[in-house]
Amino acid sequence: MGYFDTVEKIKFEGKESTNPLAFKFYNPDEVVGGKTMKDWLRFSVAYWHTFTMDGSDPFGVGTMNRPFNEFSDPLDAAKARADAAFELFEKLGAPFYAFHDVDIAPEGETLRESNKNIDTIVAILKDKMQTSDIKLLWNTANMFTNPRFMHGAATSSNADVYAYSAAKVKKGLEVAKELGAENYVFWGGREGYESLLNTNMALELDNLARFYHMAIDYAKEIGYEGQFLIEPKPKEPTKHQYDYDTATAYAFLQKYGLQDHFKINIEANHATLAGHSFEHELHYARINGILGSVDANQGDYLLGWDTDEFPTDLQMTTLAMVEIIKNGGLGKGGLNFDAKVRRTSFEPIDLFYAHIVGMDSFALGLKTAHRLIEDKVFDTFIEERYQSFNKGIGLDIVNGNTDFHKLEQHALSAHIENKSSHHELIRGLFNQYLLTNK
Amino acid sequence: MGYFDTVEKIKFEGKESTNPLAFKFYNPDEVVGGKTMKDWLRFSVAYWHTFTMDGSDPFGVGTMNRPFNEFSDPLDAAKARADAAFELFEKLGAPFYAFHDVDIAPEGETLRESNKNIDTIVAILKDKMQTSDIKLLWNTANMFTNPRFMHGAATSSNADVYAYSAAKVKKGLEVAKELGAENYVFWGGREGYESLLNTNMALELDNLARFYHMAIDYAKEIGYEGQFLIEPKPKEPTKHQYDYDTATAYAFLQKYGLQDHFKINIEANHATLAGHSFEHELHYARINGILGSVDANQGDYLLGWDTDEFPTDLQMTTLAMVEIIKNGGLGKGGLNFDAKVRRTSFEPIDLFYAHIVGMDSFALGLKTAHRLIEDKVFDTFIEERYQSFNKGIGLDIVNGNTDFHKLEQHALSAHIENKSSHHELIRGLFNQYLLTNK
Amino acid sequence: MGYFDTVEKIKFEGKESTNPLAFKFYNPDEVVGGKTMKDWLRFSVAYWHTFTMDGSDPFGVGTMNRPFNEFSDPLDAAKARADAAFELFEKLGAPFYAFHDVDIAPEGETLRESNKNIDTIVAILKDKMQTSDIKLLWNTANMFTNPRFMHGAATSSNADVYAYSAAKVKKGLEVAKELGAENYVFWGGREGYESLLNTNMALELDNLARFYHMAIDYAKEIGYEGQFLIEPKPKEPTKHQYDYDTATAYAFLQKYGLQDHFKINIEANHATLAGHSFEHELHYARINGILGSVDANQGDYLLGWDTDEFPTDLQMTTLAMVEIIKNGGLGKGGLNFDAKVRRTSFEPIDLFYAHIVGMDSFALGLKTAHRLIEDKVFDTFIEERYQSFNKGIGLDIVNGNTDFHKLEQHALSAHIENKSSHHELIRGLFNQYLLTNK
Amino acid sequence: MGYFDTVEKIKFEGKESTNPLAFKFYNPDEVVGGKTMKDWLRFSVAYWHTFTMDGSDPFGVGTMNRPFNEFSDPLDAAKARADAAFELFEKLGAPFYAFHDVDIAPEGETLRESNKNIDTIVAILKDKMQTSDIKLLWNTANMFTNPRFMHGAATSSNADVYAYSAAKVKKGLEVAKELGAENYVFWGGREGYESLLNTNMALELDNLARFYHMAIDYAKEIGYEGQFLIEPKPKEPTKHQYDYDTATAYAFLQKYGLQDHFKINIEANHATLAGHSFEHELHYARINGILGSVDANQGDYLLGWDTDEFPTDLQMTTLAMVEIIKNGGLGKGGLNFDAKVRRTSFEPIDLFYAHIVGMDSFALGLKTAHRLIEDKVFDTFIEERYQSFNKGIGLDIVNGNTDFHKLEQHALSAHIENKSSHHELIRGLFNQYLLTNK
Repeated sequence: MGYFDTVEKIKFEGKESTNPLAFKFYNPDEVVGGKTMKDWLRFSVAYWHTFTMDGSDPFGVGTMNRPFNEFSDPLDAAKARADAAFELFEKLGAPFYAFHDVDIAPEGETLRESNKNIDTIVAILKDKMQTSDIKLLWNTANMFTNPRFMHGAATSSNADVYAYSAAKVKKGLEVAKELGAENYVFWGGREGYESLLNTNMALELDNLARFYHMAIDYAKEIGYEGQFLIEPKPKEPTKHQYDYDTATAYAFLQKYGLQDHFKINIEANHATLAGHSFEHELHYARINGILGSVDANQGDYLLGWDTDEFPTDLQMTTLAMVEIIKNGGLGKGGLNFDAKVRRTSFEPIDLFYAHIVGMDSFALGLKTAHRLIEDKVFDTFIEERYQSFNKGIGLDIVNGNTDFHKLEQHALSAHIENKSSHHELIRGLFNQYLLTNK
Repeated sequence: MGYFDTVEKIKFEGKESTNPLAFKFYNPDEVVGGKTMKDWLRFSVAYWHTFTMDGSDPFGVGTMNRPFNEFSDPLDAAKARADAAFELFEKLGAPFYAFHDVDIAPEGETLRESNKNIDTIVAILKDKMQTSDIKLLWNTANMFTNPRFMHGAATSSNADVYAYSAAKVKKGLEVAKELGAENYVFWGGREGYESLLNTNMALELDNLARFYHMAIDYAKEIGYEGQFLIEPKPKEPTKHQYDYDTATAYAFLQKYGLQDHFKINIEANHATLAGHSFEHELHYARINGILGSVDANQGDYLLGWDTDEFPTDLQMTTLAMVEIIKNGGLGKGGLNFDAKVRRTSFEPIDLFYAHIVGMDSFALGLKTAHRLIEDKVFDTFIEERYQSFNKGIGLDIVNGNTDFHKLEQHALSAHIENKSSHHELIRGLFNQYLLTNK
Repeated sequence: MGYFDTVEKIKFEGKESTNPLAFKFYNPDEVVGGKTMKDWLRFSVAYWHTFTMDGSDPFGVGTMNRPFNEFSDPLDAAKARADAAFELFEKLGAPFYAFHDVDIAPEGETLRESNKNIDTIVAILKDKMQTSDIKLLWNTANMFTNPRFMHGAATSSNADVYAYSAAKVKKGLEVAKELGAENYVFWGGREGYESLLNTNMALELDNLARFYHMAIDYAKEIGYEGQFLIEPKPKEPTKHQYDYDTATAYAFLQKYGLQDHFKINIEANHATLAGHSFEHELHYARINGILGSVDANQGDYLLGWDTDEFPTDLQMTTLAMVEIIKNGGLGKGGLNFDAKVRRTSFEPIDLFYAHIVGMDSFALGLKTAHRLIEDKVFDTFIEERYQSFNKGIGLDIVNGNTDFHKLEQHALSAHIENKSSHHELIRGLFNQYLLTNK
Repeated sequence: MGYFDTVEKIKFEGKESTNPLAFKFYNPDEVVGGKTMKDWLRFSVAYWHTFTMDGSDPFGVGTMNRPFNEFSDPLDAAKARADAAFELFEKLGAPFYAFHDVDIAPEGETLRESNKNIDTIVAILKDKMQTSDIKLLWNTANMFTNPRFMHGAATSSNADVYAYSAAKVKKGLEVAKELGAENYVFWGGREGYESLLNTNMALELDNLARFYHMAIDYAKEIGYEGQFLIEPKPKEPTKHQYDYDTATAYAFLQKYGLQDHFKINIEANHATLAGHSFEHELHYARINGILGSVDANQGDYLLGWDTDEFPTDLQMTTLAMVEIIKNGGLGKGGLNFDAKVRRTSFEPIDLFYAHIVGMDSFALGLKTAHRLIEDKVFDTFIEERYQSFNKGIGLDIVNGNTDFHKLEQHALSAHIENKSSHHELIRGLFNQYLLTNK
């Protein structure tokens, strides 16, 4: 007896299928550009939103119908949740999952007890992973829910909290090694400030860098070889988070000599809260060699908080996949559905509907992106647009063979002619590729 | 010799066509749900963006290559512009156009001279309309560009400016009658305030209502029977515009007894600047019986000003068409491309690329919306969701046959069970309809 | 033994005082423009934020140190909370308070039990009010926290929930009468939609209007004569709330013939979320005769959600008080601190610090606004600016003695000259008044 | 005969003065914390907004009454403008000014002619500077207004434009040397993208870095020793600018080895458009050693574009001055009023009103900030808050004498107790300091 007995394994049936419990575009073993869809997309289910989240919001308590969480002993609930999780992973055909420590195991009265609870559940998860193809994309430590983190974790104004945070990450790295997590993630939910008036930002950032260096050292010590990831978010819950966006995180990594040890986990909804498009963040990370992984969701542009919706914007998923393909894929990273069903979609079946539309949206995005790249739809315009840098003064510029004297000489005689960007034509071609999906 | 000699009449070639100067979805005479696409969509070209706009922005001067505007005598330019306009209308197959007074004819030294210039060009336009199928969707008076309108027009703090504005609208109504304009539009670009500290809002709003009543009277006097439209916008250029959004305009119309004389012209980019989705504004206007016409464009959610881009967001065009079909069409209104090519798309050919992608995006939206409605995709969920209002206490509520006593009695014994909204499933179905376009 | 034993009654000590537990500007019995500060300001403490709120946010659990809530029996906690509340009201010298039903008494297993709990606590509150000068500014029903309201309350898609909501408001009106509440408030936290795709907005709005008419009828039946108030908010928790802003609520009230029965309760933070300044909303309500009461707080312009901070922006409090003085005060309304201490200000003493800064900010605002009005600082500019409407064609316009013919005649000969708005000078004068506080 | 004959030199008269043409707080030679106000504040007038800007906006043409610009020969206008400028600088008592090349001299038909015009005016400016105390805070090259920069300047897709840009900056550096400019500024108005779909961001950023390195080389070659500054802005006119905010610029500078050669010029309105408070940007720059100069203005939080208003927000000016004092002043930088009078404040006198309120707002900010720092108002809270890092495990953390093992050991036995942030108390103290200005 499972928690999703009415649902069978989700299969690919093609875009004309009217079965709401079938994939229309995601065909895991279909080869696109030399790799299977499964390998390109590396889908991951987020434990917190799918198994722990109860549908509460700042104005309302939980609504979710989640039988696996209804146990009086929290450890029993944790075990049931693990059962439900692997049932869903397998029925969905999701090859990866991701979790915070508190998602999988209840916090105890003490750190020691919390760690014991983690050990209990990690053993169970390990068993389940060994009897399935499901892998851990990443794990992380939740250092924002408990009141002790009210002033931050690795940037807390309280040294005891800093130490506690270190202990949690130490345990997290041990779990990562134990379960073979491909990545270990840092999201600084409360690493930032509520008010600048009472904040020593310089000390906090220095401490954060010290924390990361200790994490690197410890990973090395225990032989954990996963990729470290920082996940930027500009605000919420704090007024201002230090890892505002990819560029801010990159500035920090460089300043503190961390740039060779970390990549970025980019979340679509965090990008837009920071004023950037999702594809902008992916592109910026890619050209700076720090694109690590993706939290695949979408926000609502008209709302000012993180709605973490399942992705359904096909223009967005396509442009994201253009960046990912150009990056040669995500390496150890993946597309983790850091997305939650709406508060009113409270039935277990909604978890399937939601993941299916998310997976199909990215699968279509992959196929469309591949065709756009193969046919050089955007690249033709780009090559044409920058061709002046392939010869003459342009080539000298690129090769560093010029200076202000030479450039002025050139400018004094040059007849400048710009070309149209044909922006609207490009948008039209983009839509045509999207709509002639096969 | 024309201004767009390299372009032939744009034809429908279907979605697999690779000709950038062909329609992929817009097939004017194709029947969808009992009406031709042409009749549903009633596309209109905006004179100002397409023929007058020069590509300048707050940080740069004009870039557009527009031979028809390069005449030393502004009246000669106006005539050339009219030639170019009708050439484009016909090649594009756009059945309507729209203009502000100053778009078609240059302002003179005096009001009298300005009116004379208008008469000259109106005669030319009338001739062109008589020898073509092209009609005027609406005209309006530009009461924001000239410095005299710095404090507003019909809400100016200067009575002379108010009188001047009345004279302009009087002329505008005469032109509307002369050219058979189906609508007359009011957009209050400077009807609002820059600072509340020096504004008598009560007087300004009273004056605005008086102005509208006089306009109604004058239209009646001259026998002009077009529809009057108010176009909301929340801000820009002023800090706050009085017609912030459809609801604000509706409050105003009701307060001043104008609700039977006006409908609303909804612009997509204005909707989002006001914090609403385009479909929200259309829906709200529809259920209140005031949906008049549409300025079809799109904004950039991450920018805080009016970008007036040609519409390419297919989810948006589809949801807009759902509202329009449910409204039984737009009546005298139409889909006016209040949209401009980007500053860098400065070649004449870009005007065609841009309109084609806009027209195709709405044509696809129409077809998809029609199928969604025919198949009751959304309506099935809605009917199911509200079925408790078809019987028992629900029916009593709807029929007004209840009161707080009866409702309390019911509540004391009712066992409340809510149903999932299945939001993610609906989004998935929506995308599937979009992607199985035919 | 009380809950705030370390705090004595807060006194006025003047602006040079260094006592953090003293008022620097709020001197309740000081007369400003013919009324005491207490009478102008009518401060009210919000039960929910100050006594029930636990400091949780979407990413963290509660942090607040609130001994009065630490009882195993929720009814015991409710009683202790009432004790703490009146202790704080009296020490603070706040003449009013406000609550939702669930703030004062725990929900029971059934509606009947919930009502019984309410009765128990209402009797206690009534006793406390009789032995003090403290009055109830308003009460309301919380129809958003419980999962039953997931689809709305008076706009729910479920008729049983609609009935349940009616029963709650019926009880609320009885409580209002029992406690002599000066107002009864409706905030439609979930009266709106999460997705337009599954919403029957027309039915929901019709039902809402029916609900309000039944409320009016019931108030009449039981002889409750308080003022009904609608509190607009644009979004959060729902995607879109029907009472988006004052103008939207005004459109609704007019459409459904409710405008004589309702006024508006304007919240500063809701105003800015809707894209308006606080003073805009107050001004708009004032000139339309619907300014009822105020939720005095402030948001963070750089965050997209309701932060409900205690007001400290002195330019804002001053401009708000300008509107309130010009309205002749708030009538039955008041300034209710719908404001909460930050999550990290978790000690009981912070509740005092927070209210003191809020009360002082509005007291200073009152005094500054009074001087600005007495000295006609803004009004001198306004009178000068609109003087053309006091004579000639301007007076004809205002008196309705003109038409488009006469206005055109005037315009043909008028020489238009606009005057500078001297905006920067006005801002300078404003600041000077603020800084020469006495 | 001058252009501002009705205005005499602006004097300090104190806060009770009713003279609108007097300073109420800015007393240039008054000593605050060991330096004169003049030396702390280093006010600069922006040539473009004050002498060149005509009041146009995207929906309207110019409104400004500027006799010095009304000459048929643009070079005559440029000369008259220089006269007017120095008249205003002296009457205002502004010690600095700033300009773009095109502000001071008209562009010619050719680059050579443009440079000649610059030489003509620079000679005039030099004369005026030699006979006055007025100095050049910074100059820069306008590389965004002319259509040639439609695709960018140092990031243009057109190598000829890149060369032209180099020639302009070369000339700008020569002018900087000639006039003794304390800084040279780069604002990348069009260094960014309109659409990611046709942009080679990697090439553009590499080219930009090459450009900066060549600028450094050329400055060295000619012996120009001013400070180089980058001015971040997130968007407008382009969709996305590369120097989005200070952190983004810092990431860029580090990547390309430029961090020792550049500091940041922070503009208040640009900060808020990027989602940051002004003080955040100043603080971030300060603790990273890259705070260079300030563009002193303010935006409107409810509008999404750059309004460049004269600063009147006293909480903002005070917090800005806290950062500047803590930075030990701005070094070669200053407070440049990159601010413009509103479109309706079109009279010459408004330029004085505007600068006076701006200067007074910052002067008050300086005095209040100084008292806040002297009295350790914020610092007391900060020291208390972080005291756990002064001893024990906290000191080990700061000194790098710990690791995850030791921290875990500490955490296993630590009893964590957080302290209240007393945020509301701090805000109250802040206001009290502001309101007890002397």
